[in-house]
Amino acid sequence: MLRSRYDVCTSAKTVLLVYAHQSAGSFNAAVKTAAVDELKKQGCRVLVSDLYEVKFKATATEDDITGAVKNPEHFCYGNETMLAWQEARLASDIVDEHKKLKEADLVIFQFPMYWFSVPAIMKGWMDRVLTLGFAYTLEKRYSEGIFRDKKAMLSFTTGSHETMFSSNGINGDMNVTLWPIQNGVLNYCGFQVLAPQIFWAPTHLSPEAREGLLEGWRTRLQGLLNEAPLAFPPADIFDKGKGFQLKPEVREKQADSPFGLTVGHHLEKPLPPQSQMKAGV
Amino acid sequence: MLRSRYDVCTSAKTVLLVYAHQSAGSFNAAVKTAAVDELKKQGCRVLVSDLYEVKFKATATEDDITGAVKNPEHFCYGNETMLAWQEARLASDIVDEHKKLKEADLVIFQFPMYWFSVPAIMKGWMDRVLTLGFAYTLEKRYSEGIFRDKKAMLSFTTGSHETMFSSNGINGDMNVTLWPIQNGVLNYCGFQVLAPQIFWAPTHLSPEAREGLLEGWRTRLQGLLNEAPLAFPPADIFDKGKGFQLKPEVREKQADSPFGLTVGHHLEKPLPPQSQMKAGV
Repeated sequence: MLRSRYDVCTSAKTVLLVYAHQSAGSFNAAVKTAAVDELKKQGCRVLVSDLYEVKFKATATEDDITGAVKNPEHFCYGNETMLAWQEARLASDIVDEHKKLKEADLVIFQFPMYWFSVPAIMKGWMDRVLTLGFAYTLEKRYSEGIFRDKKAMLSFTTGSHETMFSSNGINGDMNVTLWPIQNGVLNYCGFQVLAPQIFWAPTHLSPEAREGLLEGWRTRLQGLLNEAPLAFPPADIFDKGKGFQLKPEVREKQADSPFGLTVGHHLEKPLPPQSQMKAGV
Repeated sequence: MLRSRYDVCTSAKTVLLVYAHQSAGSFNAAVKTAAVDELKKQGCRVLVSDLYEVKFKATATEDDITGAVKNPEHFCYGNETMLAWQEARLASDIVDEHKKLKEADLVIFQFPMYWFSVPAIMKGWMDRVLTLGFAYTLEKRYSEGIFRDKKAMLSFTTGSHETMFSSNGINGDMNVTLWPIQNGVLNYCGFQVLAPQIFWAPTHLSPEAREGLLEGWRTRLQGLLNEAPLAFPPADIFDKGKGFQLKPEVREKQADSPFGLTVGHHLEKPLPPQSQMKAGV
């Protein structure tokens, strides 16, 4: 029996698109719309957080808390917002995003890369919505993370050509550039991180070539929810009692490998090729 | 003749502190104050951009431009703000920061690390103040960058211990985490990047130990403006005509080295140790 191309979402998966572009006429907008349309066609429920549209507050301040803060002399955002979350005193825009995030099986971050990272408005979403207690604790992170049953991915446009973001190119390896976000934000919260969708320098392309990129994206979206995630090491190979260092037996087992474990856990060896860009490598 | 410890600033250098913490009672505030005091003692002129205090706008929007935008159907922040900069139609808060930046010989970014990066309010400073045309062009970047006669550095606190940010630790190598900011923002604009000042997990320390860290910082500040910067490759070793790839003769010369050139330009070799953390390695 043939497997329908729309099988992937028949169990009514929920996808949250966190989207950051100022203009409805942008290529990022077209990519976002393609995702909404394609995922709905598959039967998915699609939620969109259009950050510029709602003028999303990017800065982590006391205003994120209703009522008195615990320590006004030394306001510590992490601790204060954890407490506010426990006591249901967080700002309503954060609560709204928490609700969406809880319902989401997959979160897609759609943005133009700004300065080798996400735009500030999206960093603000990460800083404010991934609340201590709600999104992570010191006990629940990485492979033991709170969102370990969810998936997340980056989908973005660059200003530079692909050649410039290689280990041989002027900007350096994109795998290195993606590490702090994919490991330090997404994997940290437990998300299974899908390979990024990178649209290289679309402003330099013809409308036809851009349409080709969108078509490729639509095709990928048909199988997206069934994709295997990027590989990150399980949290329990690090020894909690010893400053979360790699356990000696794991390090020994790795001794014969030509590569480190990941970009960040490189163990003074060459980086595993394309490990932040492709699953199953 | 003995060289005075205050020689470094006798030519009245200007230092800009871009500072992002919500609380005057924080360790980050103490680090900032130590820098202001020590640099003034040396005769430096010190400018402070206290981002939370001035409620710095973090998001890159049309409001950053006075008057009509060129392409309202497809608002492109980079192009539109470059035009507004040329025509003196940028928002006054950006103009104020441009003025400070032009005068600065050294820029120190002081912040608590949020999600393996700068807080959104500081990313907003980078997104909005490092305007195309003013801070970089496609011709003037990296070692040929507009700010090549200026220095810049990151000074930050972490939540995690140092062991956790090694290539052997659960968070992975801090050198990798710093690469996108130090290379992709600071080095990109031409800044000579000084080694970062990292205050590892100060909340876990005693007041005495924190005071010790401040004392170390004050000592470093005495020689800061004379420090050698981190090593980044010159822009002209990449071939503009061939997608800014490393020139074959440079690659050949590197063949015998046990290490890549930098964290990002790793050339499939082990990363040069501590290259984003220490100068002269």
